[in-house]
Amino acid sequence: MIRVGIVGYGNVGRGAECAVMQSKDMVLAGIFTRRDAASIHPLSPDTKVYPYAALEEGAEADVLLLCGGSATDLPEQTPQLARRYCVVDTFDTHARIPAHFAAVDAAAKAGQTAAIISTGWDPGLFSLMRLLGNAALPEGAGDTFWGPGVSQGHSDAVRRIEGVADARSYTIPVQKTAHAVRQGATGFTPREKHTREVYVVLKEGADPQRVAQEIITMPHYFDEYDTTVTFISAEEMAAEHMAMPHGGFVIRSGKLGPERQFGSLMEFKLELDSNPMFTGAFLAAFGRACHRLHERGQSGCFTAFDVPLGLLSPLSGEELRKTLL
Amino acid sequence: MIRVGIVGYGNVGRGAECAVMQSKDMVLAGIFTRRDAASIHPLSPDTKVYPYAALEEGAEADVLLLCGGSATDLPEQTPQLARRYCVVDTFDTHARIPAHFAAVDAAAKAGQTAAIISTGWDPGLFSLMRLLGNAALPEGAGDTFWGPGVSQGHSDAVRRIEGVADARSYTIPVQKTAHAVRQGATGFTPREKHTREVYVVLKEGADPQRVAQEIITMPHYFDEYDTTVTFISAEEMAAEHMAMPHGGFVIRSGKLGPERQFGSLMEFKLELDSNPMFTGAFLAAFGRACHRLHERGQSGCFTAFDVPLGLLSPLSGEELRKTLL
Repeated sequence: MIRVGIVGYGNVGRGAECAVMQSKDMVLAGIFTRRDAASIHPLSPDTKVYPYAALEEGAEADVLLLCGGSATDLPEQTPQLARRYCVVDTFDTHARIPAHFAAVDAAAKAGQTAAIISTGWDPGLFSLMRLLGNAALPEGAGDTFWGPGVSQGHSDAVRRIEGVADARSYTIPVQKTAHAVRQGATGFTPREKHTREVYVVLKEGADPQRVAQEIITMPHYFDEYDTTVTFISAEEMAAEHMAMPHGGFVIRSGKLGPERQFGSLMEFKLELDSNPMFTGAFLAAFGRACHRLHERGQSGCFTAFDVPLGLLSPLSGEELRKTLL
Repeated sequence: MIRVGIVGYGNVGRGAECAVMQSKDMVLAGIFTRRDAASIHPLSPDTKVYPYAALEEGAEADVLLLCGGSATDLPEQTPQLARRYCVVDTFDTHARIPAHFAAVDAAAKAGQTAAIISTGWDPGLFSLMRLLGNAALPEGAGDTFWGPGVSQGHSDAVRRIEGVADARSYTIPVQKTAHAVRQGATGFTPREKHTREVYVVLKEGADPQRVAQEIITMPHYFDEYDTTVTFISAEEMAAEHMAMPHGGFVIRSGKLGPERQFGSLMEFKLELDSNPMFTGAFLAAFGRACHRLHERGQSGCFTAFDVPLGLLSPLSGEELRKTLL
């Protein structure tokens, strides 16, 4: 049994806990939190909760699933913990991946541990799809679309506007553009690829027109998209917008043959009732792979590109060849 | 530059030749054939054609793409050539994969070479999708559908019937069943998953009723499916049925969360104007990976499950993390 520790207990942490409980080859070593341990209520009463500091003293875990955020938690925690533990994270700030990789690689090599970074569904699963598409169809076009789904980051940004009591922002792929990408078209702007739909509960007395204007002109978050703003009651928000669905699709379209006359389309689609539950599931599978890489004597930082995918499964190579190949 | 040899020059061999020509990091070391070399007409006049026996004397190739058939060619050629060369094949007789793996593994270990078997799109690409689905959603259901597309094996089987001048058999997925699998249903029979449509050109004087009866009752090939037989002229066959389109989709549907209340759907789809061109493209990408595994000092037999997918791309790990992760 692989002893798995969970570091951080938000939505993804709960997803990871569920995934470990669904995995027959894993046992939960505990949840490690910087919050008051007594305030954490794991899904199973058997799950132990420890303060984060317990990791410094040494925890009996074969691998840690790091469930913190990419903004401040992971840049610090992943390299720090990689010095002592095998670790897996979901670092998703694309522009900072090279720096994060370098920091984690140095720490893991020093500690003779294995680390796999950026293992959610994007980056992670979708990255693998982009890679397969590019490898099979080097002359081609491709693009990634997200949604329909809730964007946590965009929802948070709207909540910070004065007069907003609560908000939920949905990302919607533009099907017409996706269709064009399947035909080989490229070069679309953010506005052409996705729209955004924002649902807002106003604080008493707030001016809806000003709030709507602040949303649709917000740099980076909304100004590059066609955004609709709908004002709803707190009751409607609670009744209809508490779920965290997400998904998306990765398209690769290319031409093969001596005259490039043969069209080829590869498309991977994901539809999730719960974004953090699926992220936790994938994180746990990469936790298994991380432990196994380490068992094979490998150390340093890896991404989804560097891991033989057979290591994600609890089945042996022989069983995999018999049942899934 | 990776020096790539192509062994066998049928439809897949031509696909492999095209793929090598589309790959900036590969150069064609030549085509090796058991037919009369003068009868082979490569797509590029620069491509050299050698007799198969030249491989025994020693060819200057970093990796060989084996483009023969699974029935008789590959069981013999892959282990034989793995003793001396890095090799990649598309062996697709599912039941015999364990035996083939063992034979190739022994040969490659003896020769200190690397071999990757079963690397087409199924087995190969679709196998990876099944694995990812099972790893992320261990409690779930999934299935693979093929088509719409031409089944070469079924077309050949019909051509062997007395009175048949030419034939083409199409595999058509049953969309209603695919929809049920997306909802989590399992346990479908071959008849529920696919239909077959056969187009036949009769020889003069042949009895259409007898031929149709022989087709739809043919054990294994057609008797387990709802099959329609349509008689057409040789001209119609030439005008409308000479392409080799294929494709299919891999579905995995699962439930996550403490009460398994969150549905999750993963689906990968492939639509190909030319089955052998895409097979050749994937074979070439795995040829690249095979050469790189060998450069890393690895030897023995591998499948798609054992290869870090980053090795399929001509880009470095650093470039991949920047552009595709």
